[in-house]
Amino acid sequence: MNAEIIAVGSELLTAERVDTNSLFLTDELNRIGVEVTTKYVVGDDRERLADTVHRAAERSEFVILSGGLGPTEDDVTRDAVASALDRRLIFHQPICDAIEQRFRAMKWKMPDINRRQAFILEGAEILPNDRGTAPGQWIDIRHCSVMLLPGPPHELKFMFQKHCAARIARRVPKLAIETLVLRVAGMSESALDELISPVYKKHANPVTTVLAHAGDIQIHLRARCTTPAQSLALLAEVGGQIELLLGDRIYSRNGDPLEVVVGTLLKKQKATLAVAESVTGGGLAERITTVAGSSDYFLGGFVTYSRKLKISLLGVLPETLEKCGAVSKETAEAMAAGARNRTGASHALAITGNAGPTTDGDDAPVGMVYVALADAAGTVSTHRQFNADRERVRQFSGQMALDLLRRRLLTPG
Amino acid sequence: MNAEIIAVGSELLTAERVDTNSLFLTDELNRIGVEVTTKYVVGDDRERLADTVHRAAERSEFVILSGGLGPTEDDVTRDAVASALDRRLIFHQPICDAIEQRFRAMKWKMPDINRRQAFILEGAEILPNDRGTAPGQWIDIRHCSVMLLPGPPHELKFMFQKHCAARIARRVPKLAIETLVLRVAGMSESALDELISPVYKKHANPVTTVLAHAGDIQIHLRARCTTPAQSLALLAEVGGQIELLLGDRIYSRNGDPLEVVVGTLLKKQKATLAVAESVTGGGLAERITTVAGSSDYFLGGFVTYSRKLKISLLGVLPETLEKCGAVSKETAEAMAAGARNRTGASHALAITGNAGPTTDGDDAPVGMVYVALADAAGTVSTHRQFNADRERVRQFSGQMALDLLRRRLLTPG
Repeated sequence: MNAEIIAVGSELLTAERVDTNSLFLTDELNRIGVEVTTKYVVGDDRERLADTVHRAAERSEFVILSGGLGPTEDDVTRDAVASALDRRLIFHQPICDAIEQRFRAMKWKMPDINRRQAFILEGAEILPNDRGTAPGQWIDIRHCSVMLLPGPPHELKFMFQKHCAARIARRVPKLAIETLVLRVAGMSESALDELISPVYKKHANPVTTVLAHAGDIQIHLRARCTTPAQSLALLAEVGGQIELLLGDRIYSRNGDPLEVVVGTLLKKQKATLAVAESVTGGGLAERITTVAGSSDYFLGGFVTYSRKLKISLLGVLPETLEKCGAVSKETAEAMAAGARNRTGASHALAITGNAGPTTDGDDAPVGMVYVALADAAGTVSTHRQFNADRERVRQFSGQMALDLLRRRLLTPG
Repeated sequence: MNAEIIAVGSELLTAERVDTNSLFLTDELNRIGVEVTTKYVVGDDRERLADTVHRAAERSEFVILSGGLGPTEDDVTRDAVASALDRRLIFHQPICDAIEQRFRAMKWKMPDINRRQAFILEGAEILPNDRGTAPGQWIDIRHCSVMLLPGPPHELKFMFQKHCAARIARRVPKLAIETLVLRVAGMSESALDELISPVYKKHANPVTTVLAHAGDIQIHLRARCTTPAQSLALLAEVGGQIELLLGDRIYSRNGDPLEVVVGTLLKKQKATLAVAESVTGGGLAERITTVAGSSDYFLGGFVTYSRKLKISLLGVLPETLEKCGAVSKETAEAMAAGARNRTGASHALAITGNAGPTTDGDDAPVGMVYVALADAAGTVSTHRQFNADRERVRQFSGQMALDLLRRRLLTPG
């Protein structure tokens, strides 16, 4: 079964705005077993929208509109759908009363224009809006269901989940959909795809999607069979083959990002962490502390952008900087040892590198990054030469450091 | 004049992917004076795409397709447009030779399927692709121009700017478009809108758009008149009224973000900066160092997530933490003074706060943030109670700190 999603609003046709409702709706629909075949963004143009709705309703089982249900002249969704489906709009006093009540609760008087929001398509069912004034509507015509949902994401999500999802699911041939998300560090997307595509390309079910972002790769598998056991068996079969090929490069099997995986390992081992950063400029610490509860294991960090601070805050020897350079194995290891030493953390990570755009006096080429880890057993390090822009070098570097720590925590001693 | 933008590819109909090409194209088209009336995302479905192209070409002056020009069976754009416009596809040997040459340069043999990329619509003009294999195409039919562009953003951008933009501009009635971007810190979006909407709502030209993101607000004004002088005069008139209302809350008039504005001020005053962060966890340093060349004024920073490190690294007195709490004016000021003292920077910023989700033993409520600045003249601080989630509290806090520094640098002494 197919769905088409129509986002309404001229503000979504600017260079700055993206329609995100359709991503949420696509995710929900796919879970239920409905494929999205076309997405639209249409401005506040009654005729154009009516034409779009008319055609979508002719060829798909579900048409979902978001936005354009506000009280102003610009809000054309009700009128356009009425015209597309050839239905009248009927004024509903109880809806008008409910809207008036909402205003009264905030001690405001309802402006007259809000009466527009109380018009309902002939034969439509009203979808209550618990988060805003505009009610949604559900209309069944022949083989197609058309939904009018509000534009604000928190209103739309709540209404869809409460009033639409189960209802759509009842019309879809029952399929048990199961998903598996594998996350991988330390590989390029092309190297990963070369390795695993011979496996997943053999299978139309589960559907496999590979998403890559600066050293972090997600592999999504979605299986659809008639029973959950069949779906899970398919996932186990195909997922198992992929896992075998990737081995310990897989850091998560439940969607958790690397900073959460590392945090969980640290907590379990009652270990603590400190960081010393140069090229990432605080980005590694920032990423670690996006995790709520990270204060349980993360003590803190140093951003030593200048050579002077590498010496005074971390105790890197001036000779090391002089002889080996700020971007070197020796400096990285001295930074990690210094961070561990000065904070009392059980583990310390350090990153030094050159993200460009130019090499500033140092000999290290743009894109060269060294990462080091200090713990009770000593100091280890690794390096890579990236060929990417400043921002991506910084992201790659953080991923590299966290993965070094993950591997260490998995094989301690 | 109107344009419709069609992104082609089933991968763009997943819950994870967004079509970003249309944002770039919208920006370019708006600059030229063309409005975008509808955007589509269509899967790899020949008939559906042909139908979409056919209707778009009937009602708009420009139809721009991106993607679906690859060599595989899934790449349906050429076929679909041929069918929509009722044109034949003709094989072009020179294009095939050029693609083969690209492969040879990488010491690869061209796969046979790549011949598909050498088919051109009857009467179309070839748009060379300097960044990839698939050439673009430009077809004029009656009142409409249809463009087929490659999907990868860096190929599309280059091709559009080099081969399409000027050509579209020649067909558009000459209007001089001028823009002004004002950026504002330290206000909520609603407070700002209440203040300035009475001004900008009176004017359809310039068009004003307000974009807000966690304490950072952008006001875009776009004026379209027959001469540049007229456009600039309009911008000066309306922009001037807005500037008067907002005063020194405007931190930038050229689109520069706050970290760039502060960096420029520091550089000009030969000042240097260090930071000490708790709640933002490295995010402030990270943001400052996104600016290439920030090493000229940014020395480094401390992430002191634990009380112990606030004492050992920054010299905050245990009594201060005990008596006033880690989230307090006193601790923030001691952190700033400590960071300045230990790094030798002329200016130091400190942030301490509670981003939630829970208060951990400390008395400070979730969302409370203190920001302090230390310089030669002493220490100042400010605080705010945010009502937002963890991530937004962290973003707001960084904005607050940078704006405190900006104001100080503007009125030194």
